[in-house]
Amino acid sequence: MLSKNKAKFIISLQKKKTRDEERLYVIEGDKIVGEFLAAKIRLHSVVARPEFLKSLHSDYLSYAGEITEVSFDELRQISTLKTPHNALALVPIPETCMNTDNIPGSLCAALDFVQDPGNLGTIIRAAAWFGIKNIICSENCVDVYNPKVIQSTMGAILHVNVFYCDLKEFLARAGERNVPVYGTMLEGRSIYKYDLDNRGIILLGNESKGISDELKPFITEKIKIPGINTGTPGIESLNVSMAASVVFSEFMRRRVNKSEL
Amino acid sequence: MLSKNKAKFIISLQKKKTRDEERLYVIEGDKIVGEFLAAKIRLHSVVARPEFLKSLHSDYLSYAGEITEVSFDELRQISTLKTPHNALALVPIPETCMNTDNIPGSLCAALDFVQDPGNLGTIIRAAAWFGIKNIICSENCVDVYNPKVIQSTMGAILHVNVFYCDLKEFLARAGERNVPVYGTMLEGRSIYKYDLDNRGIILLGNESKGISDELKPFITEKIKIPGINTGTPGIESLNVSMAASVVFSEFMRRRVNKSEL
Repeated sequence: MLSKNKAKFIISLQKKKTRDEERLYVIEGDKIVGEFLAAKIRLHSVVARPEFLKSLHSDYLSYAGEITEVSFDELRQISTLKTPHNALALVPIPETCMNTDNIPGSLCAALDFVQDPGNLGTIIRAAAWFGIKNIICSENCVDVYNPKVIQSTMGAILHVNVFYCDLKEFLARAGERNVPVYGTMLEGRSIYKYDLDNRGIILLGNESKGISDELKPFITEKIKIPGINTGTPGIESLNVSMAASVVFSEFMRRRVNKSEL
Repeated sequence: MLSKNKAKFIISLQKKKTRDEERLYVIEGDKIVGEFLAAKIRLHSVVARPEFLKSLHSDYLSYAGEITEVSFDELRQISTLKTPHNALALVPIPETCMNTDNIPGSLCAALDFVQDPGNLGTIIRAAAWFGIKNIICSENCVDVYNPKVIQSTMGAILHVNVFYCDLKEFLARAGERNVPVYGTMLEGRSIYKYDLDNRGIILLGNESKGISDELKPFITEKIKIPGINTGTPGIESLNVSMAASVVFSEFMRRRVNKSEL
């Protein structure tokens, strides 16, 4: 049974302030909770219906933390979903520390003021798929531990580190180390004709404003995704998460072709 | 001022049944209403705040149909958005008739049970960008005139025809005409190594179930988007709209390379 206090506590984690204080975030759904346990992530607690708990491999239970068996109605009280699943868990926010020493040799994404939770979640999912391990967000991006972001990563958050920092400083430091910064711009060069490298920073901008003026000077490689009749009403831009997927895929293609993976 | 009857009528268009009967759908937002007018689409009616109406080019007003000036509060009553914009319009559903004769020579997308409105909207937006003019949906896909679909197309619905039909029959007919059917499958061949043609059908499946068993036999070209560590928890699949963007982009790349666009 779920106590009133525990219910209140879980609901309070919908706020960023509480998440920051408690260093906990919420995941929801049989699949995602199961995946975190399968990946041997030590959870703070699991709140679930008996059906879900019975379906779990017994090895996983030792990673679940405190387990509370609840009814569907109790789950609905604390869920952010219209139709709650059978399980919800509280996960400790990892103490990740950005190691900028790794940046020059690898490929990462930098997000400038990405506001929509679904977009950030989808970009994380694409990054995991295409093997991009680090995403650096400007401080005004949506919080990665927002429940909607976490839901739309579909578990991919397990594979990608997300950092928040002053992007201007970050890009300035990257520039000092001659790390290429790829930015999608209308006047860029077709990504199909670029000899993309397996290192650098892919800079992606805000949903409606694109890359902000103060960051544009740090772009060393202006790229664009070619389209048909672009610029006419209704074909002004690609959604940022679609653009991310296409650009990540282009980098992947080079890696695959070079290594014959 | 907005009459009670008009408000009720607009709200009733949130239901597919009413949209089908009235042959009207709703678009919301200054930008999208402006784009429809700029594209000279004859609207049934526009409901907007005076600010929006004043900002319109006078040439466009003749396409607006019946104009109702409203307050922000009146707009909020009829809006599906949390924060309504300044304008909303009712648009006649076009009487499109699928001409299957064009299919063999062009590139189109076929969607099997795509349920999420945001995904359908995003796929339409990507299709418009990459010059894919026709999307054929199975009858159990979400309705294209659902307000959430329309919002997420960002006006791209102006450039793409969306049809609903029995996909099994459609693919069977395509097979008789030797039209290639590309389907993303885990055991497929890397899209990076495929010599993609500028014709055929790109078949995309349901968000969680993928392409249904009854349609799989129609796939003539099994393709896959390579990833890193795919199949591990959290990296099981790409979202269908991301997959669509990446595959559409690959076809685009071939066209660009061949024509040196």
